[in-house]
Parts: sequence; structure tokens; C-alpha cells
Amino acid sequence: MGQNTADPVLRIGLLGLGTVGSGVAEILQHNAQMIAERCGSRLQVVRALVRSGRRRRGAAARVATCTDPRQILEAEDIDVVVELMGGQTPARRYMQRALRAKKPVVTANKAVLALHGSELFALAQRCCVDIYFEGSVAGGIPIIRTLREALGADRTVAVRGLLNGTTQYMLGQLEAGETYADALAAAQRLGFAERDPRLDVSGRDAADKLCILGRLAFNSPLSPKLLSFSGIEALTPQHLAQAHCHGYRVRLLAQAHRRTVAGAAALDAWVHPALLGPQHPLYAVPAAHNAVAVRSLAHGDTQYQGAGAGSLPTGAAVVADLMDVARNLRAGVWGRLPFGNGRRALPPLPAHSCASAFFVSLQVQQRPGVLAHVANVFAEAGISLATVTQNVCATSLVPLTLTTHPTTFGAMQRALLQLRRAPVRRGTAQALPIAADS
Amino acid sequence: MGQNTADPVLRIGLLGLGTVGSGVAEILQHNAQMIAERCGSRLQVVRALVRSGRRRRGAAARVATCTDPRQILEAEDIDVVVELMGGQTPARRYMQRALRAKKPVVTANKAVLALHGSELFALAQRCCVDIYFEGSVAGGIPIIRTLREALGADRTVAVRGLLNGTTQYMLGQLEAGETYADALAAAQRLGFAERDPRLDVSGRDAADKLCILGRLAFNSPLSPKLLSFSGIEALTPQHLAQAHCHGYRVRLLAQAHRRTVAGAAALDAWVHPALLGPQHPLYAVPAAHNAVAVRSLAHGDTQYQGAGAGSLPTGAAVVADLMDVARNLRAGVWGRLPFGNGRRALPPLPAHSCASAFFVSLQVQQRPGVLAHVANVFAEAGISLATVTQNVCATSLVPLTLTTHPTTFGAMQRALLQLRRAPVRRGTAQALPIAADS
Repeated sequence: MGQNTADPVLRIGLLGLGTVGSGVAEILQHNAQMIAERCGSRLQVVRALVRSGRRRRGAAARVATCTDPRQILEAEDIDVVVELMGGQTPARRYMQRALRAKKPVVTANKAVLALHGSELFALAQRCCVDIYFEGSVAGGIPIIRTLREALGADRTVAVRGLLNGTTQYMLGQLEAGETYADALAAAQRLGFAERDPRLDVSGRDAADKLCILGRLAFNSPLSPKLLSFSGIEALTPQHLAQAHCHGYRVRLLAQAHRRTVAGAAALDAWVHPALLGPQHPLYAVPAAHNAVAVRSLAHGDTQYQGAGAGSLPTGAAVVADLMDVARNLRAGVWGRLPFGNGRRALPPLPAHSCASAFFVSLQVQQRPGVLAHVANVFAEAGISLATVTQNVCATSLVPLTLTTHPTTFGAMQRALLQLRRAPVRRGTAQALPIAADS
Repeated sequence: MGQNTADPVLRIGLLGLGTVGSGVAEILQHNAQMIAERCGSRLQVVRALVRSGRRRRGAAARVATCTDPRQILEAEDIDVVVELMGGQTPARRYMQRALRAKKPVVTANKAVLALHGSELFALAQRCCVDIYFEGSVAGGIPIIRTLREALGADRTVAVRGLLNGTTQYMLGQLEAGETYADALAAAQRLGFAERDPRLDVSGRDAADKLCILGRLAFNSPLSPKLLSFSGIEALTPQHLAQAHCHGYRVRLLAQAHRRTVAGAAALDAWVHPALLGPQHPLYAVPAAHNAVAVRSLAHGDTQYQGAGAGSLPTGAAVVADLMDVARNLRAGVWGRLPFGNGRRALPPLPAHSCASAFFVSLQVQQRPGVLAHVANVFAEAGISLATVTQNVCATSLVPLTLTTHPTTFGAMQRALLQLRRAPVRRGTAQALPIAADS
């Protein structure tokens, strides 16, 4: 170890020099000697692919730029390609080209990995190079490394996460009485939001991340196209206040757990705004943080918390990956870590077979027989009610909240449809999963 | 990947087949195929060194045993030695012999690493083999891996941990009104306590662990012989109740943070029972868990929580290390990860220069001039008082609690000595650090 002029150099090409790319450049500049001492190679950014020649600040301003991807993807003076463009196109194609040119890839791109991870990893294996992706999920939390390595000897039972910083922040603001528009604007101002905030508020960003975690933890071929997910767009301050009255917080929860259905093991996975009680391990996670709670057979319950995104946290995750790539290239090894975790894939349940207890809120007309009608709808859907709360109300529309025992998403869907058809009913019936505490 | 008869085999020799050794055997047996798929080698326990032929249960009963260490340390059919004996002797000597025989070592022995880690790692480097030690600190939490790899690109500012399960559990029991003896007996019954519980309650176990973390996070040559540490033996339910009245919990806190003293960077590190307020990141950690909060420049605040010890959590950490050893041996590489983090060591401050705010409790005689005397003692020690609470009391001895602004451990020591000498004073003056929230 130790830095001297004979240290080998890892020559890095960046695809993108935005928020995360600038963080990578800054960390590599400030910690150059320490990083070289720790991984035995000097890490040097040779050039970055950018869209325009706009002026940059700090360490990013000192990075040579280019606008032709060949100067990175097929360049002889680049050892490793770091993909930080985000989105599907052209990121996926560029990663393929880099792999075919025998260059390992480090990426923070959850969208491409969630949809095309298997294909890319198969290509990497054929090309005898690595893909590293710690920055793709919960940037500042080493959850990828933890699932792939630290928990590598163990069988995961459940993964539960707050994986999206924007919605995590916005829900805190909505609880404090802010409007949706103000909360979103503040999240964008603070740099939490994705460039296209629809990915955040629709739940898609968290769904992409859960697909990656599900693959690592359960070897389950989750796809955001089939996963049951929703976002926070339909939530109102009233929903949050009602949940609060019952002692719950609403959080965009991404969860996956092993279940036995009809004698066969399967993965129950979904991303939805859900109600978390004070005993839930993620109840107290601060608004600015992401967190993941893992349950596995030998380790039991472990929990990981930190910044979910941002220039420096995600940048540091990317550089930690680059240090691994440097170690691998120096030793002439690749394929050290698998993408999935073995050959027996755990099949994901179809969305309608996923199960949870639910918190249902409705507004009903104040007249005889309404509650009987509502109760009947749930009975016919085979859903057992746990609690019913109807408050005295001066208006003709009475807020009614119900909690159910665990049922399937499909049964709840049928009940909601029936409620919408019912003549006694005004407003929008909404059902949110109640997260199990353990 | 994938298991087939051509899979290479990693032949394991265990030193010790107690709590953790049985966990290792059980995990290797139950997860054999999954582990082989994930790391590309079959992991096989060839034999275990034991002291006696006493009967064992479960997977451990199927492990071949021996009583001559040569059958492990110098045996040709052993690829890797797993040291799970604990204690200094003969564990350290056996590890040296294994390394000299060119066998990598996996250990959960914090005591040997804290005192002799540098020497052992230097020997490993000379012998071109690895030492892995995830199980040595907070068994179920991958904090070693996280500091060595995930946070490898980052500069650590502070590490704060609840690292000892026995005291963590006992303090919860004491808070609930149990006696010290009952709390200790329960901790032993539940399997939290070390074989010699004095290591737990004296703070030495946590001190050993902090020395390892300080080495990894700060490249600081901490030694348990020089570290300022104390345990929970002198704590009474009254101390806990007084802290509780002020809104604090008492926990055995191990903390190390980078400080600039007289223009030079140094490490302020200690292990003491300390007062944690509700805003402290470790305040809400459950009694059965260990937790570590890390602050680093790029990642910001991250937190890791889980089981601190136990057969399966620590066993799973050991097996994850064995999987890394298998990958390294197959690739013919070693020395992938450094023990310290570079050449510039951060010197630890001498114990008397460490600093904190303090919570001081005394009993004073109810007569004029006593408070003036006490206040004078602190003033002469250069300690600034933050709050003073003296309650009306029917007896002649009045409980007095004071909180101070940050001062050094040395100054507080001087003040306590003066208070003990004061004629106005009965009972034992005690000062506990108040942990900073951020």
C-alpha cells in the first residue's frame, strides 16, 4: 500500500457531470492521497461526457469534457466507465457499449438496472467485466454492499425501506400542514427531487429501487412493470390527519417479504403510501433520511439509515465502487460478486395476491342503513373489519374510517369498486396498507 | 457460479466450537448450497479444536473434533483458520502460527485485535495472507465492512456506538427498577454476557471494540491500555433516576471523534456510561441491540443497528468473511483491504485531554455556604456550570445535581478530588459525560 509514483492509475471516464458527477470529482480531488493509500491505485478522472459546454464550479470545472461518447466508451485511455446520466436512453446503450469494450461499469442508474439489470449482468459476465452499483439505491446507505456481502451467508426474510427522499420530505411537510405544491417546490429547492419529480411522487423511483433490492436479497426477478406501486399524488392533508388521529404516520413504504402461498414460497412486494405505527422500525426515521430494515434468519433484524441521495453521499458511494474496481483490475479478477444470489429464484406474487391490513377512509351520507351497506360490501369481498370509527358530524357527509385484518390487495380492490358504485357514497374511498410492526 | 461437483472447496479449521462456532457450523450446514452459489466455493468445516469431548447438539455435533492445535494450524488439509476461542492466550499465538503456515485467519476476537492488531496485520502482510474480523465488533452489524469498504472514499469525523450487549441490556433493567445483581444474572441467562462478565461491566469489552473501530475509521493507534474507559459497576438506580428526571437515559457509550487541539488534529476517544438525550441518534436503540452512528464528510450521518452478539448473528458475520476468503483464494489475491486507512495516523488524545459536558451528582449537607463551596471548587478547576438543581429535602443530606459546559476529563477529575476532600461533603460525587446530540 502507500502512495508513490509507481502506484498504478485507474483511468476513469464519466458519463455525465451533473449533481453526482460533481460529487465524484470533488471526492476524488479532496481525498486523492487517502483513496490511493486505501485501495493501492490512484483514481484519476480522464474526461467526462457532457451535453454542453456550460460553466461548472469547483472540482467539476477542472475535469476535461467531451461531447462524443466514443471518447469514453471506446477510448484506449479509459479503464472504467462511470454512468451518471440517469434515465433509460442512451444510458443503457452506453453501458452495453462500455461492457463490450471490456470496460467495467460503475453506475447509480436504478431505472436501467431495475428494467434491464439481468440483461446487463449477463452481458458483463460474457465480457468478463464487472458492474458495480452502490449509488443506485439510497445513495448514502451501503445497502447494496450489505445485501451482497455482509448478509451473504444469510437468508433474507423481509426488506422494508423508505427509499425516496422527495416523498419522505414531502410527507413530513404535508403532516405539518403545508400544501402539496409547496411541499414539492421545497423538495425540489433542497435538491431531493429527481429531475422529473413525477418519478418520485408516482412511486416509480422507489419501485425501481425495490426491484434491485429484491433481486439481491431474494434472487427474485421483480420488475417495475409488474410490481404493485403507487405514489403520494392522491394523498391529502385530511388523509394524513386521519391517520395521525389513529396514531400512525404515512410514509411511502417499499417492502418485500418471503411468504408461503398455497404451499410454495413467493415474494410479496409492493410500494405504497402506508401507515406506520410507533412500533414500526422505520417510524422515527427523520425526513431527510432514507432507511432500510432487513430481517434475515441468522442476523435477525438489522437497520441501516442515512442520506438517500445528494451529490456527496451518492458520489462517495460511487467512489467506493471505483476503489473495488481498482482492486479487481489490479488483481486481474472480475465477477467477485453475483447480481442475484443463486439459481433458485423466488417468484414475485401477482399484485392482487399481495396482502396487508388496510386503513380505509370514506365519506358516507348521514342516514340509516349506510354503515350496514358499507359493512356488507367488505363482508362480500371476504374482508374482516378490525375497527370502525364514525365521528359525530354536523354536515350531511360523515367521515368514516375502518381498519381491516390482513387481506389481499385484490380483495380490497373489489371492495373499493363496490363502494364507488354504491349510491350512498360520495367522495373518494381510499385504502392504504397498514405496515406490520414486525 | 452455480454449484456442481467441480466447485472448489474451502477447507475450514475451527479453533473453538462454543457459541459462535456452533453458529458457524449451523449456517454452513443449512445454507450450504446458497453459500456455494454466492461465492463460487463450497465451504466445508474439516475439523474443530476443542478442549474436551463434551457432547454437542445440532450441526456442531457433526463436526469432527481434535485436541491438538497442530491438526488445524499446520494441517495440510486446512485452507483457512477460524479463531473463535476468545481471550489473549493461546488465541494470539495460534493466529500467529496459522499466518506463518500461510493460512488466512478469520476471527471474532476483539481482545487480541485491540491489543495486537497491528502486529498481527503486519505478520499477515509478511506472510501474504489475510485476516478478516467482521465478527469482532457488534457481531450482527456489518460495521467493519462498512468502515473498510463502503465508507472507504470518505473521511470519518465521528464514530459513536453502543457496543456491549450486556450493559445495554442491564441498563434497561436497572432503569426498570431491577437490582444490579438481578440484571446481571438475567443478561447471563439470555446469553448476552461474555464468559467473564467483568469484561462487559467494566467497559473493557466496549473499549476493545472502540480500539478496532478507531483504527479502521481514523487510522488511530488506540490501545485499551491508554483509552479512558469505565463501566457500569458504580452506577446505582439513583443515578439512573436522577438522569431520567433531567430527560436523559444512561448508556455505555463508546465514542471517538476528530478534534483539533492546539492546532493539530487528534482523536478524542473514550468509553463511559453517559447521558443521552432524546435527540441523540442512539437514544432509542432497543435494549437487545447494538448500534453505531458514523459521521463522515461526504456521507454525512449514517447509522447501523442490529444484534450485537449471539451464536447466529456473529456466526453469519464469520461465514460472510469466509466467503470473502474463498473469493480471494480462488483468485489468488490477498491484502485487498487495509487494516488501518493510510499512513497518516491520527494520534489519540491522552485521557485527561478528552472533553465533554458532564452531569455531576453529589449529596451535600444542608447548611449555609455549602453551595458556595461546591461552586468554588468547579470555578477553581476552570469548569463552567450550566445548570444547578438542589431539591428541598427533609433529611440533612441534600441531593445536588449540576451540569457543566464542555470541559476536559482532567479538569473534572481535579474537581471531583477537591469535592471528596471537602468537609461539607458526604457520599460519592459522581460525574458522567453528557453525550453531545450532534
